[in-house]
Amino acid sequence: MSGFVHEDLPTAEVDRREALRRPLTDAVRDLVDATIRTTVDDDEVRAVQEELEGLVARLRASQLPGSAGGRYNSERRAWHWGNAVIGAHNAIAPPMTVVHTGYGRAHADIVLGAAYEGPPGLVHGGVTAMMLDHLMGETASGMKRPTFTGTLTMRYRRGTPLGPLHLEGRIDREEGRKVFVVATISDSDGVTVEADGVFIEPSSGHSPRPAASA
Amino acid sequence: MSGFVHEDLPTAEVDRREALRRPLTDAVRDLVDATIRTTVDDDEVRAVQEELEGLVARLRASQLPGSAGGRYNSERRAWHWGNAVIGAHNAIAPPMTVVHTGYGRAHADIVLGAAYEGPPGLVHGGVTAMMLDHLMGETASGMKRPTFTGTLTMRYRRGTPLGPLHLEGRIDREEGRKVFVVATISDSDGVTVEADGVFIEPSSGHSPRPAASA
Repeated sequence: MSGFVHEDLPTAEVDRREALRRPLTDAVRDLVDATIRTTVDDDEVRAVQEELEGLVARLRASQLPGSAGGRYNSERRAWHWGNAVIGAHNAIAPPMTVVHTGYGRAHADIVLGAAYEGPPGLVHGGVTAMMLDHLMGETASGMKRPTFTGTLTMRYRRGTPLGPLHLEGRIDREEGRKVFVVATISDSDGVTVEADGVFIEPSSGHSPRPAASA
Repeated sequence: MSGFVHEDLPTAEVDRREALRRPLTDAVRDLVDATIRTTVDDDEVRAVQEELEGLVARLRASQLPGSAGGRYNSERRAWHWGNAVIGAHNAIAPPMTVVHTGYGRAHADIVLGAAYEGPPGLVHGGVTAMMLDHLMGETASGMKRPTFTGTLTMRYRRGTPLGPLHLEGRIDREEGRKVFVVATISDSDGVTVEADGVFIEPSSGHSPRPAASA
């Protein structure tokens, strides 16, 4: 996985650190939603903002110099906690958990709330594109080879409602280093967006955009 | 704009409420970044989390029953504070500000930090798709007609680095109710992702996915 750094941290410790920070990330995700939906009065908005700035300062007392990046240990456990779609420590991520069910097949179930809105009551079309992009990259790589996205096409059949959604991806065919992936996003009434993409296995081992982290 | 609700709030009051909540949203955005990057010890993570949960409860003391939706007043001022890409009260949004520079031309400058990471050091490919989707929808609609996205194709030339980015969109041509839009996202070295899309003016006034809010 291009750009990932080796760090000799035992898997048990990686798991412990990942779990420790999940409740904090969940609270931040909850705060994003509450900030959009709150109707408390002006003074309370300002008071909460001031206390929040204090909490940010406490977290920033010690921090990484830049983004989280990606790491892996000698046991082949990889972690990428800042990833925008699946990162365990990133409150922007829904987060999405991709389930691989055999060669070239993957799916994910997510629930998208107020923070992912585009047209009133519907998921932002760009958010559906983002989720499909990630699922398809993981479908192409199958957690075992690096691939990078060549092209990606989305066809919008109808609006995607906020709430529970199901994503499915599968490898349609392979031609040389090209992996052709098709995918859908659906609500309880059926498919709302269809997508197809071409993912490429790098010949040199160089991957400008590894699908494993989209 | 499909799904938008009329609310008779004077524009000055809309502007005042929008401005009042911006600093709170900025603080939440800052918290998302700090949560990804912090390296403070376990006890401090738990302590911050507990205080944060208290702040969420204060904001939730009074809130909208669902998502923010969209509203407009009699002076044709529209507001859509929860939008995932441009919403003034949505900490997930970078936020992006789209500048329209004449018929069928629009651009935006954004800075994407740790929260938008995919491959280490690079913007998540799905995030570039999300930003392009929004810009292209606004380019097609030109703030004066509803359009919905039919198809959208992204071609990834190389990885897009985190940091300052420039997006440009323009209408390539129109055929009947179809509006063909092309767009790019660039860093200081040039184009990283190209996109083209077909946006459709609804015949009936019904728009399942208005580009004005993507």
